[in-house]
Amino acid sequence: VVERQGVDVAALVRRARDGDIRAVARLISLIESDAPSMRAVAAALRGQPERAYVVGLTGAPGVGKSTVVSALVTALRGDGKRVGVLAVDPSSPVSGGSLLGDRVRMPEHATDDGVFIRSMAARGELGGLSAGVPQAVRVLDAAGCDVVLVETVGVGQSEFQIAALADTTVLLSAPGLGDGIQAAKAGILEMADIFVVNKADRDGADRLVRELRQVRSLVVSGAWRAPIVSTVATTADGIPQLLTAIGEHRAQLVSTGELERRRERRAASEIEAIMLSRIRARLTQVRTSGELDSSAVRVRTGELDPYVAADRLLTAVAADEADAATN
Amino acid sequence: VVERQGVDVAALVRRARDGDIRAVARLISLIESDAPSMRAVAAALRGQPERAYVVGLTGAPGVGKSTVVSALVTALRGDGKRVGVLAVDPSSPVSGGSLLGDRVRMPEHATDDGVFIRSMAARGELGGLSAGVPQAVRVLDAAGCDVVLVETVGVGQSEFQIAALADTTVLLSAPGLGDGIQAAKAGILEMADIFVVNKADRDGADRLVRELRQVRSLVVSGAWRAPIVSTVATTADGIPQLLTAIGEHRAQLVSTGELERRRERRAASEIEAIMLSRIRARLTQVRTSGELDSSAVRVRTGELDPYVAADRLLTAVAADEADAATN
Repeated sequence: VVERQGVDVAALVRRARDGDIRAVARLISLIESDAPSMRAVAAALRGQPERAYVVGLTGAPGVGKSTVVSALVTALRGDGKRVGVLAVDPSSPVSGGSLLGDRVRMPEHATDDGVFIRSMAARGELGGLSAGVPQAVRVLDAAGCDVVLVETVGVGQSEFQIAALADTTVLLSAPGLGDGIQAAKAGILEMADIFVVNKADRDGADRLVRELRQVRSLVVSGAWRAPIVSTVATTADGIPQLLTAIGEHRAQLVSTGELERRRERRAASEIEAIMLSRIRARLTQVRTSGELDSSAVRVRTGELDPYVAADRLLTAVAADEADAATN
Repeated sequence: VVERQGVDVAALVRRARDGDIRAVARLISLIESDAPSMRAVAAALRGQPERAYVVGLTGAPGVGKSTVVSALVTALRGDGKRVGVLAVDPSSPVSGGSLLGDRVRMPEHATDDGVFIRSMAARGELGGLSAGVPQAVRVLDAAGCDVVLVETVGVGQSEFQIAALADTTVLLSAPGLGDGIQAAKAGILEMADIFVVNKADRDGADRLVRELRQVRSLVVSGAWRAPIVSTVATTADGIPQLLTAIGEHRAQLVSTGELERRRERRAASEIEAIMLSRIRARLTQVRTSGELDSSAVRVRTGELDPYVAADRLLTAVAADEADAATN
């Protein structure tokens, strides 16, 4: 029995696999609570190949991300798909979400048992986005979601991290937001698999589409030419076309073998992030234990050279790490 | 015999300790050439407590750093001090310097055997500034320099790294450079131990001094209140006052024990940088050897969870590291 905080994690995973929304909520809360809980959930989820298709949606504040996501959920439910939604807030250091409470954010889906909606805080460098979000996607996958929509506002590095996490990355823009795509960071335009111009009934939408065409012509890409889809999410105009574009991109990824490669790269990044976070924790130990300071004194006095000092500390860290692994 | 590139490093260090300018030049070139050479030089320098006093000088392009440094060298030579000058160029990826050739940069000191002048390229993140520069300072120290002046243009993170390296950090500004101190990055103002307003005979110098006074009143500092020194380096006006300010700061650091603490922090950062650079090299090995990729495949298929995958790779890395240490 894997138990964390008095909870039988394996039992929770079994209940989540039966579609129990409370179990899903509890597992994601465990993921957010601390590193050992995240480990326990990851261990309990083992043996599950990735099934859910992950769509990342990003864009500046005001482009209508939540409305587009909600309209996509409606359309996917119409096709009989189970849908998970993760709204990642990179500006919040604290997790707020509860799967039940979050349903209020999209009241039109509040009573639908085939929809799981959850907000997550992105807890800095190695906390939320890079470690918690992929685990939460696995939980939603276990709960039988066919599609997981991961939505984040384009702030800091979060949009790049979402692009690294997603099978298909959708970059949203809208007319009347000042500089339009000028405001998009260099780099994110290249990561987009699909461009959406939302609020396409407003002035300036045509110009925005033309600008995106120009940008697209400059971006060197492989076999896939990112389509530009115009939507008015409030009336669901263009949402079927967006779903079609996502489906076409998915088919292309599958037929070229790129889907597996993307997911392997994603798993590799996740493993590396976990390794780095453990290495950092070890280095912090070295710092707080006083070992680093006493080496520094010996370097200052000339007794040790800094390379030998680094060797010795690293050997001690490695020995601790090897010990920890055998226990 | 520690030999690198066909050179007996220990013999070079002995010659450098006798003040041989060619040996000093050769050692700094070795430091710049590759990591094993840097290690060999560090090992040969062991047993030498830090003696030289390190002054970092930084400021925007056009403030007259080189002229101030040259005037300081003249004044220090007048006091009978041996002086080393390291001109660190953070924009250059390639080392250009030779101690003999660099003397041409300050022709007034070209024939003086008590002055060592060297330019160094800062080779990215962990290359030049954080690893090479402190080693070069040790070489100049071994050569009997009483004072080492480290000069860098305020670009990127280089000025912060110089401040971390120096016993006394001097921030230079000058009137007529547009925004004046507005252009200084937040943070560097707080790291300055001494402010210099160079070209003080020009319009706007008084306003700049007033601005610096205001800034200084906002910066919370300890016992030391950074003095503001006005100079006209081309005529050496104010240079004696700058030397006095450096001497007073040094006396304060010595009397409070802060000099040792600064140098220990510096040694600790240096050790940590070396450890991190070795860890990064190990992680790169894991990536290029295909071990990470094969783990990623097993995570994708659900056979492994990412934490167990990270554990196993980290254990293997630690075992390699422990092995390397015993050989």
